Amino acid sequence: MDQHYDLAHLSSVELFTPKFEESLWFFKDLLAMREVARIGDSAYLRCWDEYELYTIKLTASHTNGVGRTLYRAASQEALERRVAAIEATGLGHGWRDPEVGVGRSYEFEDPDGHLMVIYFDTERYVADDEDRPALKNQASAFPGRGVNARRLDHINYLAADVTANGKFWAEVMGSRESETVRLDDGGYGARWFRFLQKSYDVVYSNDWTGARGRFHHLAFSPDTREDILKAADIFLENGVYIEYGPYKHAINQTFFLYVWEPGGNRIEFANAGARLILDPESPTVIWSEAERAKGQAWGMKTVATFHTHGTPYVENQEEIDRLALEGKL
Amino acid sequence: MDQHYDLAHLSSVELFTPKFEESLWFFKDLLAMREVARIGDSAYLRCWDEYELYTIKLTASHTNGVGRTLYRAASQEALERRVAAIEATGLGHGWRDPEVGVGRSYEFEDPDGHLMVIYFDTERYVADDEDRPALKNQASAFPGRGVNARRLDHINYLAADVTANGKFWAEVMGSRESETVRLDDGGYGARWFRFLQKSYDVVYSNDWTGARGRFHHLAFSPDTREDILKAADIFLENGVYIEYGPYKHAINQTFFLYVWEPGGNRIEFANAGARLILDPESPTVIWSEAERAKGQAWGMKTVATFHTHGTPYVENQEEIDRLALEGKL
Amino acid sequence: MDQHYDLAHLSSVELFTPKFEESLWFFKDLLAMREVARIGDSAYLRCWDEYELYTIKLTASHTNGVGRTLYRAASQEALERRVAAIEATGLGHGWRDPEVGVGRSYEFEDPDGHLMVIYFDTERYVADDEDRPALKNQASAFPGRGVNARRLDHINYLAADVTANGKFWAEVMGSRESETVRLDDGGYGARWFRFLQKSYDVVYSNDWTGARGRFHHLAFSPDTREDILKAADIFLENGVYIEYGPYKHAINQTFFLYVWEPGGNRIEFANAGARLILDPESPTVIWSEAERAKGQAWGMKTVATFHTHGTPYVENQEEIDRLALEGKL
Amino acid sequence: MDQHYDLAHLSSVELFTPKFEESLWFFKDLLAMREVARIGDSAYLRCWDEYELYTIKLTASHTNGVGRTLYRAASQEALERRVAAIEATGLGHGWRDPEVGVGRSYEFEDPDGHLMVIYFDTERYVADDEDRPALKNQASAFPGRGVNARRLDHINYLAADVTANGKFWAEVMGSRESETVRLDDGGYGARWFRFLQKSYDVVYSNDWTGARGRFHHLAFSPDTREDILKAADIFLENGVYIEYGPYKHAINQTFFLYVWEPGGNRIEFANAGARLILDPESPTVIWSEAERAKGQAWGMKTVATFHTHGTPYVENQEEIDRLALEGKL
Repeated sequence: MDQHYDLAHLSSVELFTPKFEESLWFFKDLLAMREVARIGDSAYLRCWDEYELYTIKLTASHTNGVGRTLYRAASQEALERRVAAIEATGLGHGWRDPEVGVGRSYEFEDPDGHLMVIYFDTERYVADDEDRPALKNQASAFPGRGVNARRLDHINYLAADVTANGKFWAEVMGSRESETVRLDDGGYGARWFRFLQKSYDVVYSNDWTGARGRFHHLAFSPDTREDILKAADIFLENGVYIEYGPYKHAINQTFFLYVWEPGGNRIEFANAGARLILDPESPTVIWSEAERAKGQAWGMKTVATFHTHGTPYVENQEEIDRLALEGKL
Repeated sequence: MDQHYDLAHLSSVELFTPKFEESLWFFKDLLAMREVARIGDSAYLRCWDEYELYTIKLTASHTNGVGRTLYRAASQEALERRVAAIEATGLGHGWRDPEVGVGRSYEFEDPDGHLMVIYFDTERYVADDEDRPALKNQASAFPGRGVNARRLDHINYLAADVTANGKFWAEVMGSRESETVRLDDGGYGARWFRFLQKSYDVVYSNDWTGARGRFHHLAFSPDTREDILKAADIFLENGVYIEYGPYKHAINQTFFLYVWEPGGNRIEFANAGARLILDPESPTVIWSEAERAKGQAWGMKTVATFHTHGTPYVENQEEIDRLALEGKL
Repeated sequence: MDQHYDLAHLSSVELFTPKFEESLWFFKDLLAMREVARIGDSAYLRCWDEYELYTIKLTASHTNGVGRTLYRAASQEALERRVAAIEATGLGHGWRDPEVGVGRSYEFEDPDGHLMVIYFDTERYVADDEDRPALKNQASAFPGRGVNARRLDHINYLAADVTANGKFWAEVMGSRESETVRLDDGGYGARWFRFLQKSYDVVYSNDWTGARGRFHHLAFSPDTREDILKAADIFLENGVYIEYGPYKHAINQTFFLYVWEPGGNRIEFANAGARLILDPESPTVIWSEAERAKGQAWGMKTVATFHTHGTPYVENQEEIDRLALEGKL
Repeated sequence: MDQHYDLAHLSSVELFTPKFEESLWFFKDLLAMREVARIGDSAYLRCWDEYELYTIKLTASHTNGVGRTLYRAASQEALERRVAAIEATGLGHGWRDPEVGVGRSYEFEDPDGHLMVIYFDTERYVADDEDRPALKNQASAFPGRGVNARRLDHINYLAADVTANGKFWAEVMGSRESETVRLDDGGYGARWFRFLQKSYDVVYSNDWTGARGRFHHLAFSPDTREDILKAADIFLENGVYIEYGPYKHAINQTFFLYVWEPGGNRIEFANAGARLILDPESPTVIWSEAERAKGQAWGMKTVATFHTHGTPYVENQEEIDRLALEGKL
């Protein structure tokens, strides 16, 4: 059967934060993102090498967690194909008018209730005098400060039912599963999906609380592992909570660093962009529970809060995370 | 119009060498490639993280230069589509029986006469006990010696008529032009083409001699820039001629190192894999002659032999290269 | 008071191993060390950028642990001064005849009973044709394989009484304490001593077993942090036990990786050479128990076996380490 | 004979600039240095990991070039010894009262007329709340922006008579020559001197103009080679002239990047700190003219302006540099 690659890439993510100013400082000052718009309670922030207008829509809220995720289709035809498939599931919300950065878009939700948008028409970022790059083949000037987050890499949702959500991404969204954790009971611990050659773009992990619509993390892609080591120094110096890493995952071999931005959302810096899947028939790499229990690539065990911490917080989230860290859960 | 990505990736390259044993030492000992077959005058060598059987077919010959280049199609349908398009140009040679590493394939030539093959059915490499990786999501064990060449990245042909060959890749092969050098006379200095998200896979450069079918270089992709700096130390220590770099190209921003393997063919180590083009409508970045004359990203001028040295050698190639280096050409 | 720098550097270390062939493979194949002599049960192995003859004397034995450590004095006068000071403590064993790699030397022990030697006359390594470097300002050819261990960096002894041993190095050996962990009871958890500008050369840590003469680890110094990340990949691929890291210590800010060589001795790869102490009056940096309990620089807790594992093994060493890892100690 | 190490390190350098505001931007914004004092026409700027008060005294002037260089002695006795030796040469200017950052100091000049100061009493930098580091073993907070220049590394003077100035540093200042370029006529092209273990601290190069008191460059020491690659990107993006590099010198194997700060003075970023000379009797590495003509470690020829550009500018300096670059000198 002929292959389609209908999804081009993850485009932007709305994040809620109960500490708007502190979160804004994190993204603008430490990640070197640029604010391109401010509408109501939301700041639109962009990474320096994104061709589109913005990367993160940061929204002041009473809680944390993820709002709408935007995905760009590979073409108008691809958009129509995906919308038809989504509508057939009953998960579609309908077309939306153009808004900041994107043209007409189609809103839907995944089986876990995360809000999503797919579109094709976009607004290409045009650098102004201050932001114009020395080399014309990059989107804007290299900021040369902080973590220099280049672009968004992937998003990881928590879900009450990873099996159902994975089925949705495989069958309805037309993405390919690159790696997966199969549980002994036949379910999934986590599933990684890719759109084209980049090894993964969307991930689902089990939410042990059984809640719906929660968020595990989103990841930015720096250029090198050295950038991630430097990022750890910068977060240490600036009092940002480092949860885990820098270290190397066994799964997907991602070199990672996880921190919690001031609003409590988990942010990853992942050197995943360099890992390509060139084989169009690449089989899914399946990890058993026992294999996963071995820990990360170089042997370190997974930090306990990786399995407890999500946003928005469930009741007693901070207490639960503390107990997890102390091995009392 | 709906988009197809019919070419998956560059798969393998046949290289001719008049110094077979020395070239074999270069690829096996310095690049840490593994020999998987020896048939007649040819050794089949693989990089450690290629999912297919082999990467380079090294063939003893009276001269140097490039033999057949193999490209994998994205699917059977994609293969049929490309073969139909090639046949319509009159450049097709016909179907070939399965051979080492690949199933049925279709042979053709580009307008400059370079011999090529496109296929879909392939032989997946199965690691033996000695070569089995610790992490199941890589093709074989990390060799941990020499340059540790991970995978093939791209190939750069010389051509008497870059315009015609570029037209062939854009219109017949269905690839996208990511960057290009337009000459003041309307022609092209060089053109970079991509198949999917990787920023380029095939390049054509002007052959100043007017000869047909010559070869500029092929590139391997290490993991990091540090790998390329180490590679330079290793080539220095082993007496391999370093032509240029490590340094950073302005075009495509590739961090590069060019050496001449003992047989005289130019080999690049290019940190290009990390550079992705996520935009499905990404416009071609066009560099003028004047812009190109500025040299590489950080200002160094292009080495003179980059424009004179190609394989197979033209008459007096070595003398020409020497004069170029001395600024006497 | 005028300052003397009587100790030039740590020169070489004798290691005992109950698995001689496997340990030899570790040092020769994975660390790319070169065997320069074989006498009786001992192999003399050198790092590629050491100016002296050898770095490790590997000795087959019924157990593991450390034999004699050799230190080079800064001059003949410095040697005489240190020998006089040692003799005054009653810890001296007397002068020894020249042996492999070194001229006349003086043997002694530290208060914990570790055997040591100090000398000035040495044998400078002369590279042969196979080992001659391309650049004349390095000791021998860059091996370009495995971990490429460049030189010895420091040694860390376990001691029943860290206070007494530290006093010996400060007052008798004339070294300076760069950093230290003071316990709440007035004792020391560990003490780091430097000879000149390199931030530390000798370390003592508390042996919780109360045994004497045990060994914590010795460290090699690669060039970069990337080398250490690659080393972790190489150890993973070759089945060498990775105990801890790569990560960054808070104390001395060393980027580290600890593995256990096949004989059970702990070996570190430490990017410590780049950290210089230029201030001749540099005050000792003192860490309290509470500060140390915070873990390493980026927040990871110290691995439990770091406090239990030493060589030679005490009774039930492996069982103790296992319980430590499981949090049951 | 007993060895003394009377000089501890290069401490600070006064630079003259005809473009004060632009130079200040270079050091503060791009190098992330902190201004600690402003007196008259001078700004005192510090690197983040220097234990003393300041690193660069930037002084507005009608020209560029170097003012006084400050060196710290290893002790009071070392200071007295060096002052006595200097006075015996007739090059001493006498004792000076305490001033910004240093206590009583002794001023002198080298045979080429460069103004210098030696002292022992110093002012240790005390970080304020804004500048306090997360880890107590560093001088101040890691800035996490721009080039993050950690500390001063070495200074390179131009001299009409390199032989005489080298003799002064070897015999009067008590430093050791680590590497040297001997000319065929018996003179020196350049000489590198070290104080202790760091491979070099002071360098003299031939001034082809025959002028006295000119300046070749000073160097800062980042942590890694990756920092230097990033620095090149930052200078490119900010329009700072990159003269040469990043690349690797054969001599001393320094990984280097040379730029011209807006005032015209050459500034290097040199990963030299990691290269230690542990051998107290280390012989001087001597390079012949022919060896030097081979270019840098990986083969690139030395940029022509490296031999023509110095500060303060001689008449027609810019024209001379241009002709040199065009190969017309």
